[in-house]
Order: sequence, then C-alpha cells, then structure tokens
Amino acid sequence: MNHMQTAVQKPHDRLAALLAGDMHAVNVMIRARMASQHAPRIPEVTAHLVEAGGKRLRPMLTLAAARMYGYEGPYHIHLAATVEFIHTATLLHDDVVDESQRRRGRPTANLLWDNKSSVLVGDYLFSRSFQLMVETGSLRVLDILANASATIAEGEVLQLTAAQDLATTEAIYLQVVRGKTAALFSAATEVGGVIAGASDAQTRALFDYGDALGIAFQIVDDLLDYGGASDALGKNTGDDFRERKLTLPVIKAVATADTEEWAFWARTIAKGDQKDGDLEQARAIMARHGAMEAARQDALSWARRAVASLDDTPDHQIKDMLRDLADYVVARIA
Amino acid sequence: MNHMQTAVQKPHDRLAALLAGDMHAVNVMIRARMASQHAPRIPEVTAHLVEAGGKRLRPMLTLAAARMYGYEGPYHIHLAATVEFIHTATLLHDDVVDESQRRRGRPTANLLWDNKSSVLVGDYLFSRSFQLMVETGSLRVLDILANASATIAEGEVLQLTAAQDLATTEAIYLQVVRGKTAALFSAATEVGGVIAGASDAQTRALFDYGDALGIAFQIVDDLLDYGGASDALGKNTGDDFRERKLTLPVIKAVATADTEEWAFWARTIAKGDQKDGDLEQARAIMARHGAMEAARQDALSWARRAVASLDDTPDHQIKDMLRDLADYVVARIA
Repeated sequence: MNHMQTAVQKPHDRLAALLAGDMHAVNVMIRARMASQHAPRIPEVTAHLVEAGGKRLRPMLTLAAARMYGYEGPYHIHLAATVEFIHTATLLHDDVVDESQRRRGRPTANLLWDNKSSVLVGDYLFSRSFQLMVETGSLRVLDILANASATIAEGEVLQLTAAQDLATTEAIYLQVVRGKTAALFSAATEVGGVIAGASDAQTRALFDYGDALGIAFQIVDDLLDYGGASDALGKNTGDDFRERKLTLPVIKAVATADTEEWAFWARTIAKGDQKDGDLEQARAIMARHGAMEAARQDALSWARRAVASLDDTPDHQIKDMLRDLADYVVARIA
Repeated sequence: MNHMQTAVQKPHDRLAALLAGDMHAVNVMIRARMASQHAPRIPEVTAHLVEAGGKRLRPMLTLAAARMYGYEGPYHIHLAATVEFIHTATLLHDDVVDESQRRRGRPTANLLWDNKSSVLVGDYLFSRSFQLMVETGSLRVLDILANASATIAEGEVLQLTAAQDLATTEAIYLQVVRGKTAALFSAATEVGGVIAGASDAQTRALFDYGDALGIAFQIVDDLLDYGGASDALGKNTGDDFRERKLTLPVIKAVATADTEEWAFWARTIAKGDQKDGDLEQARAIMARHGAMEAARQDALSWARRAVASLDDTPDHQIKDMLRDLADYVVARIA
C-alpha cells in the first residue's frame, strides 16, 4: 500500500462509505439470522468467521446494484445477507475440503472445532440463506440464486477432480472459476438489479459485470498465491501449490513445459511429491515462460470487460464506483 | 417377516403399487437432475447412493398427499424428487459426520471416494433440490421447504453437541429427531397437500401426520440399532453405541441408572472408552430398567398420533394406506 492509495480512498472504501447505512442493516440481519435457539455451536462457529471481517464485497455488490436502480424497499438487505451467508457456507465447506488451517489470518473453524461442525454449520447457513431469499417473495430472484448455487457446487466438484490433473485446460479452469467464484458475484449484482426492477438488458449488464469481476478477482487471487507478479513471496503463498491445484499460472507453465519441467510438474502436482524449494522452483519456471505475466494480462482483460459491460447502463455515482472497483481488484497485482 | 405379512401386501408396497406411475416419473426426474454436464464425479457418487434403492418413503409421502387431494398437475413429481434429493444430500453429509463405512448394505460414498466428494456432491444435490422446488412457482412450498431445511441442519448440529453428553434429556432427543428426521417427513406430506390446493386445516393435518410418523420412524430406528425389542442382535446394530449417541433407550436407561450403571455409561458414552462386551452390557442394563420397552411404547404412541391426525381429513383409499403405513412403521419392533 503506498501513500497515494492511503490519501485517495480506495473504491471499495468509497462504496462502503456510500452504502454504510445499508451495510449496517445487513450486519444486523446477519447477526440475527445466524443465531440458533437450540444449537449454541452454530453462532459460535459462524461468529468466528463472520466477525473476522472479510471485505463483505459480495453483499456490497448487491446493495450497489439495487441502489443504482433507485431501489427503496427493504429486500436488498435480505439479498445482501443471503449472498454473504452462501459465501460463508461455501468457505466452511471449502476449508474442510482443502483441509485448511488458516482463513483471514485466524485458525479455521474445522481446526478450532471439527470438520463435522464445519459441514453441518455450513448446511445451516445455506438453509438460512434460502429462508432469507424466500422472504423477498421474488421467484425470479429465487431462480437466479438456485441456479447460482448449483453452479457453485458443480464448480467445486470440478475443481476437486481437476486438482492434480496436468491435462486441465484453461477452458476447464474458467469453468471452475465461474463456479467457485464468479457465479456468486454475478448473482449478487443481478439480484440487486432484479429486486430494483431494472430492465432485462440492465440486469444482463449487471450479471456480465459480476461475472467478469469475479473471474478477474479469482485470477488475481491465484496469482497472489504464487506471490503475485512481484518477486517477494508473501506469508500466505503456496497454498494452491501444496494442494496441487491447477490454477491459471500453472496451466500456462505446464502448456509450455520442456521435458525437464514436465517432470517437475508431474512430480509436484500430479504425484504430490513435494520438497523444500519446490515452490520457488515452480515460480522460477513460471517466470521463465512469462506464465505469471500472461495470467496477469488475462486478469486485466477480464477487469476491462467488467468495466465495459456497464457501458449502456444509466450514469450514476455508483456505476463509476463499480468501474473503479474493477480496476482496483486487478491493481493488487499491477 | 412372517407368512401373514408376505401374503397380505405391506402398506408400503400397496402405496408403491398405487403410485407406480408417479414414482416412475420421479425416478426419471431424479436421474436427469442428478446428472452434471461438467463434473462426472457427481453422477458417480449420487448413482451409488440413489441406485442402492432405499424405500423412497419420503417422495412417496409427497405423491400420496398430492393424490389424496386430487392433484392432477405435474409438480408433485418435482416436489417428490426435491424431497429425495434433500434426503440424499443429508445422507452424504451424515456419513462424513458419523465417519460411517456402510449405508444400505454397501460401502459409503466417503469411503469409496472421499469426504471431500461427499461434502461437495451433497451441496450439489441440495442446490439441485432448490432448483426443482423453484420450478413449482409456489412461494408457500418454498417457504415450507426452506424452514424444513433449517430445522434439519439445526437438528444435526444439536445431535453433534448432544452426543456423548449424559445430561441429554428426552426433550432434547425429541428436538434432534424432529430436526434430523421428522422435519423432512412433515414437509414431504405438507407440500403434497399445498401443491394440491388442500385447505389450511388439511395441510396442517398432513404436517402433523408426517411429524408424528417421522418421530415414530426414528425411535424405531434407534431401537433397532440396539437389536430392537427382541433378544437377537442384528448385523448392523451398535452403530449409535459406538458413535456415543444419546438415543431414547440410552436416555431412559441413564435416567434410572444406579451408581455402577452410571459409571458404565460415563465410561462408554461420555468418555468413549469401549471394549468387547460393552454393547451386550448396555442392552442388559436397558432390559433391567425396561428402557427398550418404554421407548417402544413411545414409538407406538407417536404412530397412534399419526393415525389420529388424519381423523378429520376426507375419506380416501390413500388415507387408509397412510394409516396402515404408520402402524407398519412401528410393526418392525412389535
């Protein structure tokens, strides 16, 4: 973070400031709905995760889309809380699947309690999200979120079977990313427009924005897991390598590998036989082929698509912020 | 099974025969909707579970309730498939939580594939069920199933925290059972009535029937896990004891335990220190206090409540079958 960024407020913070009242209502609703009268384990686990903060990016997208189209009713709050609950449920199940130990700088729920609690509390949050969206009374919203849920689950299973498989293509990667990340981003923006009564073309633009933003966001995340475009390896890098995930920079490096490099990927990713120095070696191979830079260009291209998708929507203060947000998401690897 | 039961068709089989056309349509829909274009692991896992059979009791309840009120539309099929998907998703997650190795006489999915697949494919089936119910276009149905989902998840978490805890009361047990079993039974019958346009009083009766039937069903299941009321220990008994679950016969035995018996329960259930012969010893203690017989009486009482709840509904061939079904469910321990 440089001084410039500190002085000029980040797009995320400007959106948060503009939507502060709504976000407060969302937080109140999240706290009320994650409670359970009968099973105290539930709020313990969810509080651990929800209170840890996170950027609340997804619910903010729903609020922003609804406000951009002048929504004055109460249900954008329900939908924003819905989206955050689905996200949190997914994180709980992801941490079980990935056998993760840390999330947002804290020990994961599966480590603090157990896998059982993470599975069942995830199910609980998912069903709570379902109750919240039913309350909006909008079948169109329910349809969008039901489809998004299926896409998310399908993407997660696809990622599971694609892991360790060096034959994974960029097309499969895109499908995984659309599932695990972009589906919830695009549903978040789309339902915000739908609840506000935006036209079909406008909700389509909101969907496209969320879809492209989600893909850019995930590519950046996958790049940062290898230390980003910079030379410095961050504290939390290497998770994907250890979990043998075929993320974009790896796929690009594998596609151009010579015999020796192929043997390296076969040993570390396909076989999972990893030793000290392998992560640095993976990065060196990627650098040699410009794999990180190529992935970075892909992220920038998706961010540009996110910006462009809002071209034909009405001018609005929030629209400018959403465009800035797309630039900002990829600025993390600029 | 005696000759009498073989000669006179069982209530479950008579219902199945009457609803054969509908059940066929449900099976076709289940097969179509559990497929995934992108992730072949999904149909592998679900087929393993769905094709294993099971009694399809829950979807049959939905079909029966809808037909009892003269429903002629297509959506009872969607709802029956929905209910079976929710049930299957719950089984997948249960087997992860219980670390089960066998289900319906076959190795569990978590054993054949891995816990990850069971968690994620369960999520997929749950979201598919969500899509199916949205297609019915009935917000009331969605409300009922959303609430049932939350009750199920809450019951599962409650069971997790109540396990190993000798202070678990019959009231807590009932809450767990209402969640893990009865909530889906009562939702299955209720949505069948709702989709058929039954009156509020009639759908309430259907709910009460499903609730009482589900509780009776689970108490019987829990009794059979200790070998039922007979002296013979069946092949699949002892799972609950090994998992240290506080089921009804155990709760009743603990409530009347003397000092020595209390020490036995504290060692085997609370501490989980179990050795050969402990299961037989548990059964002997239960027999001494009539705990099995008392739990059996509770099951019979819930079955009677199920039968009585249909008193004020119109006469119908299916109504008689549903009443017979309630008797049959407890006849397994008669």
